[in-house]
Amino acid sequence: MISLADLQRRIDANELSPEKALAQSVAAIDAQETALRAFVCRDDAPRAQTSGPLRGIAVGIKDIIDTADFPTEMGSRIYRGNRPRVDAPIVMLLKRAGATIIGKTETTAFAANDPTPTLNPHNHGHTPGGSSSGSAAAVGAGMIPLALGTQTAGSVIRPASYCGAAAIKPSFHLLPKVGVKCFSWTLDTVGLFAAGVEDLARALAAITGRTELLPGAIAAPKIGVVTQDFAGAPDAAGAEALRIAGRAAERAGASLSELKMPDVIAEAWRIHYVVQEFEAHQAFAWEYLENYEAMPPLLRGRLDASKGITAAEYDAARAVMVQARAALAEAFREVDVLLTLSAPGAAPKGLTSTGDPRYNRLWTLTGNPCVNVPAFTAEGGLPVGVQVIGAYGDDARALAAARFLEAALAR
Amino acid sequence: MISLADLQRRIDANELSPEKALAQSVAAIDAQETALRAFVCRDDAPRAQTSGPLRGIAVGIKDIIDTADFPTEMGSRIYRGNRPRVDAPIVMLLKRAGATIIGKTETTAFAANDPTPTLNPHNHGHTPGGSSSGSAAAVGAGMIPLALGTQTAGSVIRPASYCGAAAIKPSFHLLPKVGVKCFSWTLDTVGLFAAGVEDLARALAAITGRTELLPGAIAAPKIGVVTQDFAGAPDAAGAEALRIAGRAAERAGASLSELKMPDVIAEAWRIHYVVQEFEAHQAFAWEYLENYEAMPPLLRGRLDASKGITAAEYDAARAVMVQARAALAEAFREVDVLLTLSAPGAAPKGLTSTGDPRYNRLWTLTGNPCVNVPAFTAEGGLPVGVQVIGAYGDDARALAAARFLEAALAR
Repeated sequence: MISLADLQRRIDANELSPEKALAQSVAAIDAQETALRAFVCRDDAPRAQTSGPLRGIAVGIKDIIDTADFPTEMGSRIYRGNRPRVDAPIVMLLKRAGATIIGKTETTAFAANDPTPTLNPHNHGHTPGGSSSGSAAAVGAGMIPLALGTQTAGSVIRPASYCGAAAIKPSFHLLPKVGVKCFSWTLDTVGLFAAGVEDLARALAAITGRTELLPGAIAAPKIGVVTQDFAGAPDAAGAEALRIAGRAAERAGASLSELKMPDVIAEAWRIHYVVQEFEAHQAFAWEYLENYEAMPPLLRGRLDASKGITAAEYDAARAVMVQARAALAEAFREVDVLLTLSAPGAAPKGLTSTGDPRYNRLWTLTGNPCVNVPAFTAEGGLPVGVQVIGAYGDDARALAAARFLEAALAR
Repeated sequence: MISLADLQRRIDANELSPEKALAQSVAAIDAQETALRAFVCRDDAPRAQTSGPLRGIAVGIKDIIDTADFPTEMGSRIYRGNRPRVDAPIVMLLKRAGATIIGKTETTAFAANDPTPTLNPHNHGHTPGGSSSGSAAAVGAGMIPLALGTQTAGSVIRPASYCGAAAIKPSFHLLPKVGVKCFSWTLDTVGLFAAGVEDLARALAAITGRTELLPGAIAAPKIGVVTQDFAGAPDAAGAEALRIAGRAAERAGASLSELKMPDVIAEAWRIHYVVQEFEAHQAFAWEYLENYEAMPPLLRGRLDASKGITAAEYDAARAVMVQARAALAEAFREVDVLLTLSAPGAAPKGLTSTGDPRYNRLWTLTGNPCVNVPAFTAEGGLPVGVQVIGAYGDDARALAAARFLEAALAR
């Protein structure tokens, strides 16, 4: 993979020009894109900026995010040729920080379940996951050092786990989602993919101007392990990743304890679906009511199945969400971060399914920062990650603990 | 004004066809639009739908809300000729309920301060207020029975007060704001203008499917009067409106008490600006950074002035907001609703200013439902309203108490 931190250091030291840093990504894309199909479209003649902390950094943008310089087709023929007038704020923040938008990455249609043609860079017979398929694959394959994704259930952390990339779904509200196609306004969160946790921290600091995100690993974090039994049992590879990550952290000096979650947390896991689907019926009202036949079949089927959710059920679900957020905040009184599964296991075989977000959806509902750290390589060369979860608003500590874990796993 | 409730009743009783109900609006617009300039564009041949609770109801849509059938120009030359592919969800919800979108209404550029050419229907020498200028004027003038506005500080309740219309800014999250040009994602709220409170309740119930919004006035509400001293003193006309509304409510059987707000509420009033401007710099990143010269001058000046707000100040402001929401929830243990000023006084003279949102911004920050009820006619025939404020999520009670007050004032 291409390390953003490494490029930044060499560019800052004048050992590498931004143009050459960018050219490295272009060459890597040229070498792999035909096989992997991570991009929907690309800039044919990208130029590096000469200033800004992200100068020379090629960024891929998930194709549900508006860009003025590229079509934004949402993975759906309903938006074929759609060309926004405006860059989404998150794209403007990247450009303002010096980054070069290298192209748009494949997304499942409307960031739902209908798969893309993208292949897993570690094993072409497997899915890269979704919905941020192209962003995860492009970073995991070493084509680009940074990519944007979005997560409504598990669309950043799960594909990162499958593709062996680091990723962060920051605290809800940290990154603007104006100009990002809406699935659920309560859940949709913009996230980042990069080679490692330091790369994520540097990118997030550059985008937001929040320098508190930069410091390195914390020593000896208190880690609460959460098995998410309410979400069912993981595959062997998922369980193994969590075991390996926990053992590595303990050996490196962390104190681990298994945290039992209060009942409202399991209930929150269950009602994520209600919030997501109720809002999706409004968010996709135009597509579903005016373009029913052209809707992606899996998403259309989901919307057909969730038509009956009532406003009262939605209100009750939101009330559970509020209680769960408070309960989770309590849990963080005893630990620095939580450690849990990023996905049930390695990437599923074939391209018919993008995998199961069941270990992700709770944390999207609660809005906590989640960082995927690759932990284990399963059969077939497929990576499996774990996620480090911070208190709401404490992205700095989530990143610092994830760096600790990453270093522990590298020993 | 045209009463939506009255049209609904007559259409339901087959005394009036939806087509004839719609024609009444078209005739009223034709008679007054040249003088008032409430609309940016209109449907030349509008058709009534034959089913749905809002059949025959002509609705005006503030021109920062995406419509597939009309340009959406945001009140700014930067968006001249902009034609969205998609109807915003709130527009789809209206159409699904049977309404006819009659046209787009004038908005201050990007819903900020730069005025529109719209005149106050009660006195052409005065502003209709803003930013939802055309929607407030069109309903206040009796051109249409229903219009959409949006409020980030005071852009629904204040122009409603100035134009003598009823209006509701519902609880934050009740109406979807996907496809509405963003100013501040924490604050922006879609609201409705109509002739009276029953009309608002019927429209909101039809849009959301929430029948609990429909019942009539509550008897003898407990009302907490809030003077908002932290926002400065009102004009004589504003103070008079609040006095008259309080007295009418008391005579009709309400129990009134003046509620002192805790200090965090005043602090929340002060930091509304920080949340609004910090997010606006991200929301308008493309316009401000790529189209600086074409930006509306008042908004551009505001953004120039607020450049220095830091992420730390924003985080602190959001923390105050969270505390204020909790403190306000406590206040509702003792009363059914709050009663306070909708605006400092009557609509200012001339069109250079759209008035001052200082009595509105707190309640936009806290997300509580606010209903404007016309209370008093000041010199020059200018209406002055008061606002009834409900607990978060209790739009039904806010509407029921506003109906009580409206009836009390009519005696």
